[in-house]
Amino acid sequence: MRRIRLEISYDGTNYHGWQSQPDVSTIQDSLEALLCGMTGERIKVTGSGRTDAGVHAIKQVASFGTESAFGAGVFLRALNGLLPVDIRVLKADEVELNFHPIRDVVSKRYRYLIDDNLPSFPMLRNYSWSCGVRLNLEAMACAGKFLLGEQDFASFQTAGSPKKTTVRTILDVLIRRLEATALYPSLVCIEVEATGFLYNMMRSIVGTLVMLAKSNEPELMKKIIDARKRSAAGQTAPPQGLYLLDVKYKK
Amino acid sequence: MRRIRLEISYDGTNYHGWQSQPDVSTIQDSLEALLCGMTGERIKVTGSGRTDAGVHAIKQVASFGTESAFGAGVFLRALNGLLPVDIRVLKADEVELNFHPIRDVVSKRYRYLIDDNLPSFPMLRNYSWSCGVRLNLEAMACAGKFLLGEQDFASFQTAGSPKKTTVRTILDVLIRRLEATALYPSLVCIEVEATGFLYNMMRSIVGTLVMLAKSNEPELMKKIIDARKRSAAGQTAPPQGLYLLDVKYKK
Repeated sequence: MRRIRLEISYDGTNYHGWQSQPDVSTIQDSLEALLCGMTGERIKVTGSGRTDAGVHAIKQVASFGTESAFGAGVFLRALNGLLPVDIRVLKADEVELNFHPIRDVVSKRYRYLIDDNLPSFPMLRNYSWSCGVRLNLEAMACAGKFLLGEQDFASFQTAGSPKKTTVRTILDVLIRRLEATALYPSLVCIEVEATGFLYNMMRSIVGTLVMLAKSNEPELMKKIIDARKRSAAGQTAPPQGLYLLDVKYKK
Repeated sequence: MRRIRLEISYDGTNYHGWQSQPDVSTIQDSLEALLCGMTGERIKVTGSGRTDAGVHAIKQVASFGTESAFGAGVFLRALNGLLPVDIRVLKADEVELNFHPIRDVVSKRYRYLIDDNLPSFPMLRNYSWSCGVRLNLEAMACAGKFLLGEQDFASFQTAGSPKKTTVRTILDVLIRRLEATALYPSLVCIEVEATGFLYNMMRSIVGTLVMLAKSNEPELMKKIIDARKRSAAGQTAPPQGLYLLDVKYKK
């Protein structure tokens, strides 16, 4: 048995998320179908975590075990030759058998893009949230500071997906306006890095940051965290603005 | 009768181009359906020119005549409220009755984006051409210089769309590599401004520039122009990399 680790980038627009599901298209199913065809084995691909329908990945990490003799480079070329162009394999490496893409995660970093231009930019409709109002980034950055550190983030967990604990550690919050370029208008970019994310945590953090920026009450973030209930926080921001940006592992 | 001029931006991915056609979705039809509903009139929207299926517009110009008393601002707000988010009206103005969006054009500028990264960037699959090989921009820029000026561009006209003359004047050719940003990888950006474009002229120019960059024979561009036949030039680059960038009018 050998273990292959993949780094994958995908456009989630046309998929029902990462995780295998019956009767719909998912990223995991797309990979497994090709790997089973290549090797003749029943291969299961494990990702670092699921992403929801419409959510993108700049870098997702996954791995699978195989009895085949194909080198990692063969998997890389074959997958990129056979996969649809909205899924690309960036890297393939043979790793130690005990590598586990979920258990070994040290931190994950998500990015969220908001198009706060009026009118919005049509080419970004599947890649950002058109929030309909110009955002005050000072207020957002001020609210974002309250998120740092080890805290109970129960207020940002969507119901129906209980975890043993809702305590996580947010290591970094970066909120900035990306200036307009030759290609794209000015956009708001929010990045959060944490030891782990509860279900919908990034999207409900973004919805809450936008709510507090609109009302210009950034200091309410502390009360919202302390409330430890989902109803205290803002809406869940839509999936198409969300990108899994990086997954970090112990050396 | 009054005349309203619109500036429009659209994502062409889900449309069969600008121009009205039976049984399929087009930009012109989308606008006309809403304007007819608003005014109760049979309104015809005339664009500065057609764009093909999958082609985008950063700025398309169009106009229509109406007997209604609605101000230009009312049309702007109503259209943006009712149109799907892949079509946005950037500007609406009342103009003189004799304004004509085709006849009055002084020049048009197109942009073409090429993703020459390996692997390609999945989020740009509908917004660029993944040409599969790293491009030599020096060769492209050298070939591009031969395009400038008043010339017979018959080599870049797709058959089946005869125009009275195939002579046009190319005013500017700008070929550059856009460096990677926080959001996007490095891309090749080609912009051409001309007094007018033959059918598929921009896309066949791009296909020819890529062909000459691959073979590193930029000086062949002159022979290709002089041949005055389509078969001398390169392939027609795919539609999804093309953007109508600007339409300039006499004052």
